[in-house]
Amino acid sequence: MSIPLKKAVVMLSGGLDSATVLAMAREQGFEPYALSFDYGQRHRSELQAASRIAQALGAREHRVIKLDLTGWGGSALTDTRIAVPTALAAGIPVTYVPARNTIFLSLALAWAETLDALDIFAGMNAVDYSGYPDCRPEYIAAFQAMARLATKSGIEGGQITIRTPIIKMSKADIVREGTRLGVDYAMTVSCYQADTDGRACGACDSCRLRREGFAAAGIADPTRYA
Amino acid sequence: MSIPLKKAVVMLSGGLDSATVLAMAREQGFEPYALSFDYGQRHRSELQAASRIAQALGAREHRVIKLDLTGWGGSALTDTRIAVPTALAAGIPVTYVPARNTIFLSLALAWAETLDALDIFAGMNAVDYSGYPDCRPEYIAAFQAMARLATKSGIEGGQITIRTPIIKMSKADIVREGTRLGVDYAMTVSCYQADTDGRACGACDSCRLRREGFAAAGIADPTRYA
Repeated sequence: MSIPLKKAVVMLSGGLDSATVLAMAREQGFEPYALSFDYGQRHRSELQAASRIAQALGAREHRVIKLDLTGWGGSALTDTRIAVPTALAAGIPVTYVPARNTIFLSLALAWAETLDALDIFAGMNAVDYSGYPDCRPEYIAAFQAMARLATKSGIEGGQITIRTPIIKMSKADIVREGTRLGVDYAMTVSCYQADTDGRACGACDSCRLRREGFAAAGIADPTRYA
Repeated sequence: MSIPLKKAVVMLSGGLDSATVLAMAREQGFEPYALSFDYGQRHRSELQAASRIAQALGAREHRVIKLDLTGWGGSALTDTRIAVPTALAAGIPVTYVPARNTIFLSLALAWAETLDALDIFAGMNAVDYSGYPDCRPEYIAAFQAMARLATKSGIEGGQITIRTPIIKMSKADIVREGTRLGVDYAMTVSCYQADTDGRACGACDSCRLRREGFAAAGIADPTRYA
């Protein structure tokens, strides 16, 4: 008789980082339930990528939650009046979306509770995104503490765990780990302004970090550039 | 020259509790931005009530965020296959919606950040809803700690505060306070299964708590029953 796998909700954007995290969750013995968000992001081909990645990496199920954050503005990723930057600036980037990770983790928490899953995997990275308040380890720890008080599972015995296995890894280390686990990075879309076929601009912050990651890892970059 | 009011996001369901909180926020000198959620709740006339209350109590703006939680099921408030209970049961009620307050507070946090508001008012009550994990003061404190790490304001100086002024008040005290502040409770809808005109069933937990509150406060109950 085989031991049933533990269910885990895995947040999957369609980018390089979250695809790697999905592969890591599987290797760690979890049955992944992939969760993506359609929040009016410019790089919508990410969502098609997420769907392909979920299938290729064996997610048990893949759900896309539609959430309209465009009305609030405030970020270059959802507000078309703000230009996507092409060079790293000091402080909090204009690509920061207000409270985005908190909203996404909250919805992941709701799904986890419905599934009776106690584990949530997320691809936050504190190295590349040091300017984002909600990518810091202390933020993740605080979310987990809140989540344990927020849910039935916290009252009835189980303890929610927020797993961010790549939070302190360099892009090169992430690429190496994913390559070892068989992730096909040609499927992933990281570009902030990818075209409708998922081809990258090659110029935005995200493209630059990704390209440098492959170079530093000594692995051929399979990214399709426009 | 008048002093500008401090902006606050006020979560407004259309029920008795959150209407009272909106009136309290105004009395405390805040400029309220009312936020409601259309999450597939059965008692949809609550949303019409929220709109009337926001206007009557002087909200600067009222937004309704549409969020489909029905697909996940798990609660009698969103899953039509689960009956709404008419007597208080021990433990966590079936009307509990997984992670609902966490999702709602996260969206309130995003709006607050966009508005440069540091205060969020919410109508959680730990007396009537003692079975809900996300109505407890320790949960609110944990959410606030998380929110301070999650946001730009937390990094740049301001401190987000989650204000739950009625969390320890009895229903009678809430009714007395709202009446003092001029809340017209005939506008509010508390019933879990109100009809399309907002008339209450008179039998569900929420109706019972509300009716007992008016009786204990010695104030005539203006609720419209079906």
